[in-house]
Amino acid sequence: MFSQGIIVAPASATGGAIAVIRVSGEGSIALCDKVFRGRKALTEAATHTLHYGDIMDGEQVVDDVLVSVFHAPHSYTGEQSVEISTHGSRYIVNRIITLLCEHGARLAEPGEFSARAFAAGRIDLSQAEAVADIIAADSQAAHLIASTQMRGGYSDTLNSLRNNLIELTSLLELELDFGEEDVVFADRSRLEQMLIATMEVVEKLKNSFHTGNAIRNGVGVAIIGAPNVGKSTLLNRLVGEQRAMVSDIAGTTRDTIEESIVIDGIRFRFIDTAGIRTTDDTLERMGIERTLSAIKRAQIVISMAEPTGNFETVELSENQTLIHVVNKADTTPERNNSQAIYISARENVGIENLTHALRETVDTTAAYRGEAVVSNLRHYEALTAAHTALATAHTALVNNISSELLAEDIRLAINHIGEITGSITSDTILQSIFSSFCIGK
Amino acid sequence: MFSQGIIVAPASATGGAIAVIRVSGEGSIALCDKVFRGRKALTEAATHTLHYGDIMDGEQVVDDVLVSVFHAPHSYTGEQSVEISTHGSRYIVNRIITLLCEHGARLAEPGEFSARAFAAGRIDLSQAEAVADIIAADSQAAHLIASTQMRGGYSDTLNSLRNNLIELTSLLELELDFGEEDVVFADRSRLEQMLIATMEVVEKLKNSFHTGNAIRNGVGVAIIGAPNVGKSTLLNRLVGEQRAMVSDIAGTTRDTIEESIVIDGIRFRFIDTAGIRTTDDTLERMGIERTLSAIKRAQIVISMAEPTGNFETVELSENQTLIHVVNKADTTPERNNSQAIYISARENVGIENLTHALRETVDTTAAYRGEAVVSNLRHYEALTAAHTALATAHTALVNNISSELLAEDIRLAINHIGEITGSITSDTILQSIFSSFCIGK
Repeated sequence: MFSQGIIVAPASATGGAIAVIRVSGEGSIALCDKVFRGRKALTEAATHTLHYGDIMDGEQVVDDVLVSVFHAPHSYTGEQSVEISTHGSRYIVNRIITLLCEHGARLAEPGEFSARAFAAGRIDLSQAEAVADIIAADSQAAHLIASTQMRGGYSDTLNSLRNNLIELTSLLELELDFGEEDVVFADRSRLEQMLIATMEVVEKLKNSFHTGNAIRNGVGVAIIGAPNVGKSTLLNRLVGEQRAMVSDIAGTTRDTIEESIVIDGIRFRFIDTAGIRTTDDTLERMGIERTLSAIKRAQIVISMAEPTGNFETVELSENQTLIHVVNKADTTPERNNSQAIYISARENVGIENLTHALRETVDTTAAYRGEAVVSNLRHYEALTAAHTALATAHTALVNNISSELLAEDIRLAINHIGEITGSITSDTILQSIFSSFCIGK
Repeated sequence: MFSQGIIVAPASATGGAIAVIRVSGEGSIALCDKVFRGRKALTEAATHTLHYGDIMDGEQVVDDVLVSVFHAPHSYTGEQSVEISTHGSRYIVNRIITLLCEHGARLAEPGEFSARAFAAGRIDLSQAEAVADIIAADSQAAHLIASTQMRGGYSDTLNSLRNNLIELTSLLELELDFGEEDVVFADRSRLEQMLIATMEVVEKLKNSFHTGNAIRNGVGVAIIGAPNVGKSTLLNRLVGEQRAMVSDIAGTTRDTIEESIVIDGIRFRFIDTAGIRTTDDTLERMGIERTLSAIKRAQIVISMAEPTGNFETVELSENQTLIHVVNKADTTPERNNSQAIYISARENVGIENLTHALRETVDTTAAYRGEAVVSNLRHYEALTAAHTALATAHTALVNNISSELLAEDIRLAINHIGEITGSITSDTILQSIFSSFCIGK
């Protein structure tokens, strides 16, 4: 998929006290040794040892560094590898990488270290993708599902699914081989049981995407309501910072401002919106259009009203949750809407009830039990395709369609599941997946 | 200066494939071992070895990591230390640091790792400051002077200066001890020679600050000239990017925009300015004020005119360099100003002559020879104070003032030089220097 050779790339971001450069490939230790001046040669170093010394550009010291040596196959890529820990300067990192390239290494493509780990069979495709997810994870739940996936829990589930389906096809193929003799080896009712059981697992995985996606990307929450009902004040209260501009002039909030907080391990992304009202102001009308688009993208819509006011009419899809909030509840003791949460954003009253209601919308039981939760759109699409193929197979089975067509549908499902772990994925797709990674991953 | 105990901090920036957490202090290995699950205990690990395993929060895996173990005194701080290489997620880094703090570590203060290295006598103060400089260095020359300083070349120069002065005072003190016997041990003309030689070294160091500062912070270049003379076009040409907004409307450039490029190892920071002209436009007048301030701050002023136009009148201080540039030289063959560089920014003509002239303003001979070059304002001020004290001593010597007063002045110079390496620096000053470092340094 990628070409061979010794690859080098920055592995950490620069800007801290230290930065790390990663080098991998057969001969990488000898290559680094050419520019390293320490107490002993790196080529004589045992695996998993650290060596202090200087990186030399001819007779000039580029930096004093700590070099980690990894012998094959005991490294991330499974290849001979070196990690160089330098002072955290972009200039130094660039200069050392350039120097190594002058001595025969080349700059790694994005994701190439993970691609090599995949090619060496150290991780499967979904685990490689989880590495990218785990780096991006910014809440406990997001970290947890990426971690489960990276550690192979998800791959195990998929592999056992695949094995079930392979067993199914082998039963069917046995029947096909002896087809002319009109022997029915496969007990059709037993086949149907196996098929239904497998479909249920696929469906459960597929359905976990709703939660998985919310956990991975954060739950979008749009706050809507009449001008001056207190949307910005609520947002400020929730995120605990005075980011959104608050004023008493109707129509102050023109841009959608996004802030996010983590409630009990889940990230919620709040989208503050302009009030929806008829206006001649072009800028404000643009704000209203953005509000409507924000509502469409949100998983949760918080509709706000004053104690004496009405809630906006809003059409939601079945996957969206509507939460009614009555603000300025400190101005009146009346609580005549049992569906609504009464708060005072300004006086910090009732906010906990609201965050509790938000958190309740995400069921993290499976994720916290360490079960496989689908959070990757590519996986979701593959599972959906597998489910469709299995459903077709099931219809064929029930309608006594030939085993040949049945086996074909099941093989299709096997392939779709194989795409997730990369066992049957084409080089083009692999390349496109890995190239979306960062350099150094 | 700082309190004792085990300190922990992120050592690399997050956002890359991996991130590094640094832990230092007596007992840090045992502390890390409490949350590490690997093939063997870290407490049994040899120094400079790497260990793969999981960081555990109770029974939950936080991340799989590589742990580097350093025994005292073979670490940056000179203490027992551990570096934990994690996936490059801010969430993971925060969680592991929190976990280590729960087990008895505390978050390091800014610069505390370097402060410990200083306290352990592994580096002096100027070397610690060079660590910060080397991380910030973004050109070859800036890297070189920081590197020379970090590797102690500068400290050697300062220490030999100090030793010379200490020898001087001991000669003087010998005389004072025997003062009552009226014996003049110190040969005054030899003393004067020694004093003058030392003053010359101090002066040379002090004067290197002009270059050192330019190298460290980049050379400020203000481009001035009448509206539409092509200042933004030249800036764009120089930085090779269309950053500055270019238009034919006079007064387009209102904000000072800063761009920088590296010419032969030196960074030049170009300050594009609004044209200087009489205007009623408030915004534009603010731009003109900024131009005047930009000229004041610049080391080099490029004054631009058209072939038929005049150069702006500009008053410069003696340390500033003025370069006259005639733009739009492609529109006429006339070259009647021998002091000016003729270019066409639009047609990319003559630009190399200009960059050559810019580069010529900075003398990097000393820096490239690996000589000590002062780039730190604090050091410059200490050297200036030392020089003043030595000059006073010299006057005293020439005027036959008592050895007692002479010795006092020289001791003052010794102290000022000692401030640079930190040998006599107070805790308060040390604390203020280290606290300007980043966390993890």
